[in-house]
Order: sequence, then structure tokens, then C-alpha cells
Amino acid sequence: MTANEFKAKLGAYVSMTDAALEKYLAGADNPQKKIYEAMRYSVFAGGKRLRPVLLLESCAVCGGDTAEAMPFACAMEMIHTYSLIHDDLPAMDNDDLRRGRPTSHIKFGEATAILAGDALLNKAFETMARSKSPRALKAMSIIADSSGTEGMIGGQVVDMESEGRDIGLDALRYLHSLKTGAIIRSACTAGAVIGGGGDDEIAALDEFAENLGIAFQIQDDILDVTGTEEELGKPIGSDAEQGKSTYVKLVGLEKSGTLAARYSGSAKAALAPFGDRAEFLLELTDHLTGRMS
Amino acid sequence: MTANEFKAKLGAYVSMTDAALEKYLAGADNPQKKIYEAMRYSVFAGGKRLRPVLLLESCAVCGGDTAEAMPFACAMEMIHTYSLIHDDLPAMDNDDLRRGRPTSHIKFGEATAILAGDALLNKAFETMARSKSPRALKAMSIIADSSGTEGMIGGQVVDMESEGRDIGLDALRYLHSLKTGAIIRSACTAGAVIGGGGDDEIAALDEFAENLGIAFQIQDDILDVTGTEEELGKPIGSDAEQGKSTYVKLVGLEKSGTLAARYSGSAKAALAPFGDRAEFLLELTDHLTGRMS
Repeated sequence: MTANEFKAKLGAYVSMTDAALEKYLAGADNPQKKIYEAMRYSVFAGGKRLRPVLLLESCAVCGGDTAEAMPFACAMEMIHTYSLIHDDLPAMDNDDLRRGRPTSHIKFGEATAILAGDALLNKAFETMARSKSPRALKAMSIIADSSGTEGMIGGQVVDMESEGRDIGLDALRYLHSLKTGAIIRSACTAGAVIGGGGDDEIAALDEFAENLGIAFQIQDDILDVTGTEEELGKPIGSDAEQGKSTYVKLVGLEKSGTLAARYSGSAKAALAPFGDRAEFLLELTDHLTGRMS
Repeated sequence: MTANEFKAKLGAYVSMTDAALEKYLAGADNPQKKIYEAMRYSVFAGGKRLRPVLLLESCAVCGGDTAEAMPFACAMEMIHTYSLIHDDLPAMDNDDLRRGRPTSHIKFGEATAILAGDALLNKAFETMARSKSPRALKAMSIIADSSGTEGMIGGQVVDMESEGRDIGLDALRYLHSLKTGAIIRSACTAGAVIGGGGDDEIAALDEFAENLGIAFQIQDDILDVTGTEEELGKPIGSDAEQGKSTYVKLVGLEKSGTLAARYSGSAKAALAPFGDRAEFLLELTDHLTGRMS
């Protein structure tokens, strides 16, 4: 797969996802329709659609139909977006800007931002529950678990408790495994389930996603120090400023680079069972982790 | 069915629901477990479990197994509770007290209250997605639709927009049909679906629930003027104080009583197809609407 082929396929996935999100977030013509404005503002804010792409391609490498996986791919993006809206709230991270634009509560007011987040989480499940896939319930269960108290929300709780405190590498890894890792894993495993993947394939994609998530997080921590605001999608140095524990803070820049490369390598190794079918995910791994391995 | 038999059955449903909620909200022994404290604080705050009772009995009158319906009954209560936590937030209704106890954000801080609400909405879907019922997906779809932009959240949006403005009876009815009515209807129809009810039975329970929801809402508006704080579960006169439109404000106290009786009667009439099997729901209607009809 050439770099151009990779970019074309990635672009196609993103376009398909955006088109489906447009459809799911059109809203009926009724008095409450204006909440869709706030939902769409955050969903169409330049996100890279990483989770939908992982879900769709995980479905595809297991031999499934990506059209069948689309409601689940869009649901992942809705869940990701709601978490950003609520994380940005004054009572949480109190961020005024995201990707250079006013955050939801700055643009629409706090009440609407809370409701828009709630509505996106709910819409994720509305969208998945309409699926006709015989494996829909299993995929929903995987996704719901990953976004709840034993996943993303749990990670947010642990993060809040550890802010301003020094935590070790194990605690940091645990935090990330919940806060960002769980959703990346469920994107891959739910995609594999919808695609009719066997237990071996689901397990391989789970291992891939777990390592990719860690590599991606370390890369994020590195970019917070060395990157540009454009690469990172948020102001440089904001983690350090908020007193957050990061890999760079705990093990230094050089060791962080080594670790990211190691996890990125493990992610790619986990894809071996798929042979040539994995080439897009291999490229994607390099693409996301800056070709560090 | 005697008054004592009714009370015994109602009490049994409430106890079963509480026991199941205890189980679903126990939490694993992990670092993020403390979010369960906030979730449980609001779930076990003296709620009457109206939505679970409606769901379980709707399942039963269609000949279904209430044990199979229990995950859905608990999910409804989780969704109801999350909506109360978020409604009480400073950016929303800014209430310090609910049922005489500090609201979630007063007790745990605003960030935890937001997350506890998010976690309960998510947990509702985690719980339902673990169901083994062959009709789980359909029931989830009904429930998800009723709690989203075309249901409860939509009602909250309309409510926010109409606060401080005078709205007419049609607009008020529309607002309530979304904000509180949709969830009461989905409790009954999702229960009927899980119970294997036929289309006629589902339609009859939907009509019952729609009328019950309106009667219940009018009764709530009446109690805001004539009731005690204990009956209402919140301070008397709070609707009027917040400039909210109510049935009493729009048509007066006497006409409100007549309307409530009429809707209560329509609710009971809709149960005719169930014959004797409906006796608990008939009693429940009288119980909820103060034997006005």
C-alpha cells in the first residue's frame, strides 16, 4: 500500500463517516431542533475520526461489511465528542478553546453544552439500537462498557483525583487505559464483532488497539512538549501547566520516544495473523505515532 | 384487588427493583469506584420507582417474565436519576435540595455531579446491553429514543427556551409530552415488548401511558399549589416562583382538576383489552392521580 493509497482510503473512511454523521444529526423539524446545532458544532469541528476509522477497518479486516458497521462508527464519534464537551466545562477542565474554536459552553452557554453532551451520548445508543446487525447487542455492550465507569468515565474520575498529585508510571498507565485506551480498544473489538470476526481475530485486534492506544498517548505527551499547536490540536504545554502527570514528566523525553516506539511496534506485531489484510492498519499506526518505529 | 393487595404488590416491585439496582451499582473494587458513591447517593434517595414499576407490570400484563424485564426497569430509573442530577446543576435549575437532601453537586461538587449523571446514563445502556432477551435491541431502541432529543432531552431544551415566556396549552402539552411523557410511555411499551406483547397490547399500553403521563403532570401542577412538600417531593410553589408555565396557571385550579380526571379516566379506559389483568395498573392510576376519577 503506497502512501497515496493509504491517504485515499483514510480520506474515504472519513468522508463516509462524515456523511453518515450528517444523516444521524440532521434532526427532525420540531421545536427542540436547535439542540442539534450545538451537537453538530462539536461533532463537525475538525476531528480526525480516528475511532470510526479503527472501527470500520477492524470490521473490514475480519471480512465484514463496513456499511453495517457505520452506525457503530458514528456512535463512537458521538461518544468521543460528548466526552470532550463535558471535559471542557467550567467545572471540569474549564477550557475556552478547542481546535482554535470556542468550546461548546462558550459558544452556546453552559446549560446547552451539558445537554448537547447528554444528547450525543444518548444519540450514540439511539443510533446503534437501530442497527439490524445480528451482532448489534454484543457490539453495543462492548462500547457501553468502554465508555462507562469501568472505562472512559472511570478514567476521568481517576484523572480528577490524581490532578496536582504525583503519580507513578503504573498509575499513569492505568489512568490512560481507562480514559482514552478503553474507547480505542472497543472501536477495534466492536468493529471486529460486527464484521463477524472470530475470537482469535477479536483478541488480536484488542492487543493491537491496546498497544496503539498507549503509543498514541505517549506521542500526545511528547507533542505537548515538542510539537506545534496544530499537530496537537490544543495549546502546547497545557498538560504541564495543569500539573498533569505525563510520560515525558515521569521518564523524560528520550525514554518516552523509546517507549512509544516499543508500543507502536507491539501494536503492529499483534496484526501478524491478518497478513496482507492488515496493511492499512499498519500504515495507520505509523501515521498516528509519527513513524517512530 | 384490595388496597392491601395493591400495596403489597407495589412494595414487592419496589423491593425487587432496589435489590437489582444495588447489584448493578455495586461497582468493582478499583480506583474509580468512588464515582459509584455519587451514583448511588442519587439513585437511593427515596424515589418512588414509578418507571420501573410501570415497565415491570407492562411486561407482566403481556404475559412476560418480570425477571427478564428487570435490567430495563433499572435502566429507566438510572436514566430518570441522571436527568434529575443534571437538571439540578447550577447552569440548569440550580437547585440545592431534592427530597430534603443536598443535590449531587452540593454534596460531591459540580464535576462529580456531571460525571455521575453521565455515568448513570451510560450504565443504563451497559445494563440493558447485557440482557439476554431476544427483544432487547427493540426495547433499547424505544428507551433510547424516549430519553434523547426527540424525548426527554428535547423536552428539557423546549423547557429552557420557554422559561419566563408565556406559552399556551398546546405548547405546554408538547413540552410535557417530551420532558416527562416520553419516558413514561417507553417504560410501558418497552416492558410490553420484553414481555412479548402483541402490537395491539403495545398500542394499548402506549395509550394508557400517554394519558397517565398527562394526568400525572397536571396532578403535579395542582400539588405545586395545594399540596404539602412531602406529597410533592420538592418545595411548594417552586414552579410558580421560577415563572414556569403550569396547567394551574393556564386554566386555573378547578379546570386542572377536571382535566386530570379526564386524562386519568382515558388512561384506565385504554386498559380495557387486558380485562382483569389490568387491575394493578388501574389501581396504580388511581394511586398516582389521587383517585380523582
